[in-house]
Amino acid sequence: MITISVAGGSQPEILALVKKAKAQFSQPVKFVVFDSNENIGNDELWEYKQCHDEQDVVQQAVSYVAEGKAQILLKGIIQTHTLLKELLKKEHGLKTQSVLSHVAMVDLPNDQGSFLLTDCAMNIAPTKESMIEIVKNVRTVAHKIGITHPKIALLSAAENFNPKMPSSVLATEVTEELANLEESTIFGPISLDLALSKESVEHKRYEGPIQGDADVIVVPAIDAGNSLYKSLTLFGGAKVGGTIVGTKVPVVLTSRSDSTDSKLHSLEFAMKQV
Amino acid sequence: MITISVAGGSQPEILALVKKAKAQFSQPVKFVVFDSNENIGNDELWEYKQCHDEQDVVQQAVSYVAEGKAQILLKGIIQTHTLLKELLKKEHGLKTQSVLSHVAMVDLPNDQGSFLLTDCAMNIAPTKESMIEIVKNVRTVAHKIGITHPKIALLSAAENFNPKMPSSVLATEVTEELANLEESTIFGPISLDLALSKESVEHKRYEGPIQGDADVIVVPAIDAGNSLYKSLTLFGGAKVGGTIVGTKVPVVLTSRSDSTDSKLHSLEFAMKQV
Repeated sequence: MITISVAGGSQPEILALVKKAKAQFSQPVKFVVFDSNENIGNDELWEYKQCHDEQDVVQQAVSYVAEGKAQILLKGIIQTHTLLKELLKKEHGLKTQSVLSHVAMVDLPNDQGSFLLTDCAMNIAPTKESMIEIVKNVRTVAHKIGITHPKIALLSAAENFNPKMPSSVLATEVTEELANLEESTIFGPISLDLALSKESVEHKRYEGPIQGDADVIVVPAIDAGNSLYKSLTLFGGAKVGGTIVGTKVPVVLTSRSDSTDSKLHSLEFAMKQV
Repeated sequence: MITISVAGGSQPEILALVKKAKAQFSQPVKFVVFDSNENIGNDELWEYKQCHDEQDVVQQAVSYVAEGKAQILLKGIIQTHTLLKELLKKEHGLKTQSVLSHVAMVDLPNDQGSFLLTDCAMNIAPTKESMIEIVKNVRTVAHKIGITHPKIALLSAAENFNPKMPSSVLATEVTEELANLEESTIFGPISLDLALSKESVEHKRYEGPIQGDADVIVVPAIDAGNSLYKSLTLFGGAKVGGTIVGTKVPVVLTSRSDSTDSKLHSLEFAMKQV
């Protein structure tokens, strides 16, 4: 049984998510909802913890996770920064890595496969040091979801080192730095087609450690990640779910405008990491 | 009749392109091929101009365009920088704008529409000044292909001005600078979904001058553009063709690894601009 601590969950959007999750997940799952609103659910859907204000909501929901009573933290309808601020407090001991990052799982339709995509949401323009942590975070996620030796592609517009293109310099430096990291292949700069399409690799006669078979795409900056993420959902028919990692438990940060399905994909992805 | 000057065209890849173009284009089109190789075509396919070396090839091919004898310049199998260097020589008078940029035309399948995408290939990380020129260049292209009042979206991961996100600052500055440019609506920062999906606009209750109906996407940097371009072709089933603009005539820079269809889309897009 996986238990999910929900900060700010007594809201129609979260109620819809919980109902759908209970109906669709094959695995038993328990929701514990912290809110200062009236309880709009019932005991069959969730365990309700009445709080007196938003600060109390995040404090109680995060403590519940810190005490090991829940394995996933889900943000309901509350301010993201309020939740993150509480999550990062030393007393909880939940921040296990030096950098928090966002990892998305992209499932393509029609047996086109799936891959992890990072970081499309938290780190705006990673330095060499923060990209190294982003790579380590996503490598851990890959291992948790059963990819024993992830091939991690460091994306750039360039297919080779180009001193004029900062993303290719960054990818080269990170590749060198992490060359000896076991149970993974980390390589860049590489373009999206060579990272994900065997056909492109064959056509360009590309030789390298990643041959259209990347398990993970690491973007050089948030703009590239965000537009890639959105083009995959809008035009590629992809199912995408995301979580924050670098913490003891995966954190799902849904936003009000996400569809219930999108929230559900994120929750499913978090459950795979448990 | 449109005439195309081909620098370095006596090669199997270009022969295949010319044959396909002649067979498929409804409009009559004439190819004039400059090369130092043996002529592998014939007079029905192209007019052949024997040159003595690569420098002579680019000099003659570019002069042919400068003299007004051709309306499109197509790079065959020669070095890109050799051609661009010749093209930019003042004596030809072909560089009409201060910045050259790449514009791609993206045709989505299943009546999902089409849009222009810039700059995925030439300008690595535009400054405010160069982005202004990139916007002006693509606005000219839009007018040439019949979009009388293009809606031009300046892409960012942010949907609002965010001082921590450079792309949103850049987009805001360019929007302010170009507010009075007639026969166009220029606006950013805006995310891909709000620029191209009416459904996302409705769902997020987004209000702004662009409502999922952008005719043009301007990316903040080449990495975002390149990965977007490639995800649209790999996973979105899009047909994409590109040309260099900012010059008196559109320039098609195909690469050896492009498929014949991809070269054909670029040529078709160039013809629309004539």
